[in-house]
Amino acid sequence: MSLDRMIAKIIETGNPTVAGLDPKLDFVPEFIKEKAFAEEGKNLKGAAKAILEFNKAIIDEIYDLVPAVKPQAAYYEMYGYHGVKALYDTIEYAKSKGMFVIVDGKRNDIGATMEAYTNAYLGSVEIDGQSFEGFGADALTVNGYLGTDGIAPLTAACNKNDKGIFVLVKTSNKSSGELQDKLLEEGGTIYNAMGDMCEQWGADSIGKYGYSAVGAVVGATYPEQLAEMRAKLPHTFFLVPGYGAQGGGAEGVAKAFDEKGLGAIVNSSRAIMCAYKTEGCDEKDFAKAARREVIRMRDDITAYVPALKK
Amino acid sequence: MSLDRMIAKIIETGNPTVAGLDPKLDFVPEFIKEKAFAEEGKNLKGAAKAILEFNKAIIDEIYDLVPAVKPQAAYYEMYGYHGVKALYDTIEYAKSKGMFVIVDGKRNDIGATMEAYTNAYLGSVEIDGQSFEGFGADALTVNGYLGTDGIAPLTAACNKNDKGIFVLVKTSNKSSGELQDKLLEEGGTIYNAMGDMCEQWGADSIGKYGYSAVGAVVGATYPEQLAEMRAKLPHTFFLVPGYGAQGGGAEGVAKAFDEKGLGAIVNSSRAIMCAYKTEGCDEKDFAKAARREVIRMRDDITAYVPALKK
Repeated sequence: MSLDRMIAKIIETGNPTVAGLDPKLDFVPEFIKEKAFAEEGKNLKGAAKAILEFNKAIIDEIYDLVPAVKPQAAYYEMYGYHGVKALYDTIEYAKSKGMFVIVDGKRNDIGATMEAYTNAYLGSVEIDGQSFEGFGADALTVNGYLGTDGIAPLTAACNKNDKGIFVLVKTSNKSSGELQDKLLEEGGTIYNAMGDMCEQWGADSIGKYGYSAVGAVVGATYPEQLAEMRAKLPHTFFLVPGYGAQGGGAEGVAKAFDEKGLGAIVNSSRAIMCAYKTEGCDEKDFAKAARREVIRMRDDITAYVPALKK
Repeated sequence: MSLDRMIAKIIETGNPTVAGLDPKLDFVPEFIKEKAFAEEGKNLKGAAKAILEFNKAIIDEIYDLVPAVKPQAAYYEMYGYHGVKALYDTIEYAKSKGMFVIVDGKRNDIGATMEAYTNAYLGSVEIDGQSFEGFGADALTVNGYLGTDGIAPLTAACNKNDKGIFVLVKTSNKSSGELQDKLLEEGGTIYNAMGDMCEQWGADSIGKYGYSAVGAVVGATYPEQLAEMRAKLPHTFFLVPGYGAQGGGAEGVAKAFDEKGLGAIVNSSRAIMCAYKTEGCDEKDFAKAARREVIRMRDDITAYVPALKK
């Protein structure tokens, strides 16, 4: 039922968006990098410190406006285990501010190993009788190519620990159709089949807003498919990447929502993190610029989703 | 061309197997855990120390016999960033012993983010003009659901840095067929389509043994499909999970090999790591028991792949 927690935050803020935290070092203002390098060295540890400070400053400026953050694991793993510590610290900080945290890891594996990923992100491990959370996220993006026994450990944890998952269905990238759009002999496309599996996987966890703990990733860059999926998958909440930088507009994105203004949360990463570059303002003003972009994005999208507007 | 390095090691050792390092704390002998907990505490850091010491002792006993190790990222991430540091240290240690290191992470994402994963595992990041490797693996397992632009950054790194990838084609788990076996309107199955993409993605990186840098994961639990894929994908090297614990036998696994005894590397994880439990020997003898299992497995498989036998 965990997506209920997220949906409640969306309603509370009147904002169906999630801030992607994909902090390449190039996105971080010089003054933050200089301080971090001075403290930790010009190395992976210094880089990790810089991206953590960058994230925290952005979170401080947006947590009252945005219901959720979505750190993308790749950008932390790039800086080795120091970067992964920055991922942990970012998750902890965002949760301390009341934000819902979706780790974008697109994890996937078979049963026993998927349990380990589940424990890492949505559960805990036992060490000599005591429980420890590896990352303590609220939700995780996953890839369903391996079928039900790669998903079952996750749905068990969703029910036990009040967490959620988002399964890749139709991604936002150009080549997403190469496999996902292929037609099946039984009818429909591969992404249709994956979407149908999401409805099945979520059937036991439908919450008070009508959506299950098993969401789907459906890209903003394919509005017709958003509309098609919204109609076909009434209990599956959508995480929608591809707005802004990748070309998806608010009018298209609006097709992901139901008539109550629910059913989707739209991600933006670079446009928020790099708002100070786009604006051309002083780099010291980067977090305020992120806040301005967050407000612009909220107003852009809710103009087409009036039911949610506060 | 990186798989040439791996293939050369296979020929040198006469052993087409890879030792999976999936160290659940339950697999680690008590005396190692006690020492690690005494040094680092009964917490994630202590657990990470225990699994690293366990891995190192196994590597010390098998590196002369086995060409490669495959640490499974999930089992390290489960212990948080301390676990991820143990992954890094395990990779570094195995490489120092001359082993080829395949990180089993099944990573997948769109272009820009896949570049970050590529940099993390098969490349490096620039920090103020200096290069740093996040994990420094030789190869990475990946999921191709997102199509070519999720794979292109990897193949570029394979060519530039002499690395390899293994794309999930037909996995070893029970429910793998739910999606992967579906028939396409154009003919063939989804896993056939993914296999064909592997041949295409690897077309520019075919090495001296006839195999490209783009391998495929094809489970030992489906021998007919192994044979089918071996015939259809002549330039795609197979990473074969599911031998032993998951039920795949040597006779079936043999179908993954070509007439020269090449074309596949067979994974075993639990049977090696927990050999001391299966044998019932003293737990202090765990690494020697792993060595005995490695020899048993090599002889079991090469009995059906005589061309490779030394």
